[in-house]
Amino acid sequence: MILFDYCRSSAAYRVRIALNLKQMPYEQVPVSLLAGEHVAAEHLGRNPQGFVPALQDGKAMLTQSLAICEYLDDAYPQTQQLMPADAVGKAKVRAMAQLIACDIHPVNNLRMLKYLVAELGASDEQKTTWYQHWIYKGFDALEQMLADSDTTGDFCYGDQPTLADLCLVPQVFNANRFKCDMSRYPNIVRINDNCLKAKAFTDAHPDLQPGA
Amino acid sequence: MILFDYCRSSAAYRVRIALNLKQMPYEQVPVSLLAGEHVAAEHLGRNPQGFVPALQDGKAMLTQSLAICEYLDDAYPQTQQLMPADAVGKAKVRAMAQLIACDIHPVNNLRMLKYLVAELGASDEQKTTWYQHWIYKGFDALEQMLADSDTTGDFCYGDQPTLADLCLVPQVFNANRFKCDMSRYPNIVRINDNCLKAKAFTDAHPDLQPGA
Repeated sequence: MILFDYCRSSAAYRVRIALNLKQMPYEQVPVSLLAGEHVAAEHLGRNPQGFVPALQDGKAMLTQSLAICEYLDDAYPQTQQLMPADAVGKAKVRAMAQLIACDIHPVNNLRMLKYLVAELGASDEQKTTWYQHWIYKGFDALEQMLADSDTTGDFCYGDQPTLADLCLVPQVFNANRFKCDMSRYPNIVRINDNCLKAKAFTDAHPDLQPGA
Repeated sequence: MILFDYCRSSAAYRVRIALNLKQMPYEQVPVSLLAGEHVAAEHLGRNPQGFVPALQDGKAMLTQSLAICEYLDDAYPQTQQLMPADAVGKAKVRAMAQLIACDIHPVNNLRMLKYLVAELGASDEQKTTWYQHWIYKGFDALEQMLADSDTTGDFCYGDQPTLADLCLVPQVFNANRFKCDMSRYPNIVRINDNCLKAKAFTDAHPDLQPGA
């Protein structure tokens, strides 16, 4: 299995955690977003979106981090599962993952920040405010969900890490990088801390990847 | 089953198509985004994000449109399935759905456009350019994927509608509303036309919903 990823990509960070939790060996090929390698023909052939991660498994080239993580569950059911077994549990985990992966992360992506500056003349301060704003919006809702749900445990859903936690940890990393006030989110902080006790999560940290 | 939705929500549009394809009866409760009903306490109790759709099925209150659609497959396996049976097929369908649901739709959402105007002083023209830009970015990649893949058929994946098509049709509706040049996308247009031959898709159209 080959993971085309990049140290600074939050979406790739999710997949690295997934592969580690499932103890699946993989080769990493860094695609530098800073050097523009993601928009070179070679990478566009893997993913016409020009995004990382892309995962090659045999003949299949897979894109979109959540789709890749669920693929690993579907294709390798004998490994640690990232989703609960029941339909409602799956829906709850997917909803938390999508809250982060649809409603926070893409809005704060590098291409978005570049557009704000280049096309709308946003200042550094406006860029930071934008970034923090969408994290606060998303985390306010996620914290409420975690506080209200009787399925919240050591992790977002129960006492085992799921797809939701794979999304949470990279997003908290970004929130800390942009100096968001995390004291507003006791459940998110607690769960993030629990995740970071596990080697599967710490080994996936951006600073430890090739090209970092 | 109760669907809390709104005529103008693309995410709710997806779930309406899913419920129609699966021939599942449901009650619709409109939550007007224009009248601010989505941020009233009653709706925030259903979904702390203040978004539609939310689907109530018995005691479960489910959020996030893709999670809801997959829940319908998981919980009601005897109904028409929205996902292929094999792991790679599922991953391909989810990737196309997420390309739209993560990388186009949230970036162009009403809250985003409001922020651009209120906080960054974007003009009407800048707002339209922003909207079209992210559709073009996403559709350029999706068109390429559909053109390159040997699994593209009458629909995004094979000859049956899947989760990818549920996302495609509302996004094409938005693209047309914002006068995007769709002649660049022969596969997307063809598949959209195929979808719109089916009553499950046409019955879900925004203009036909309560409150429209």
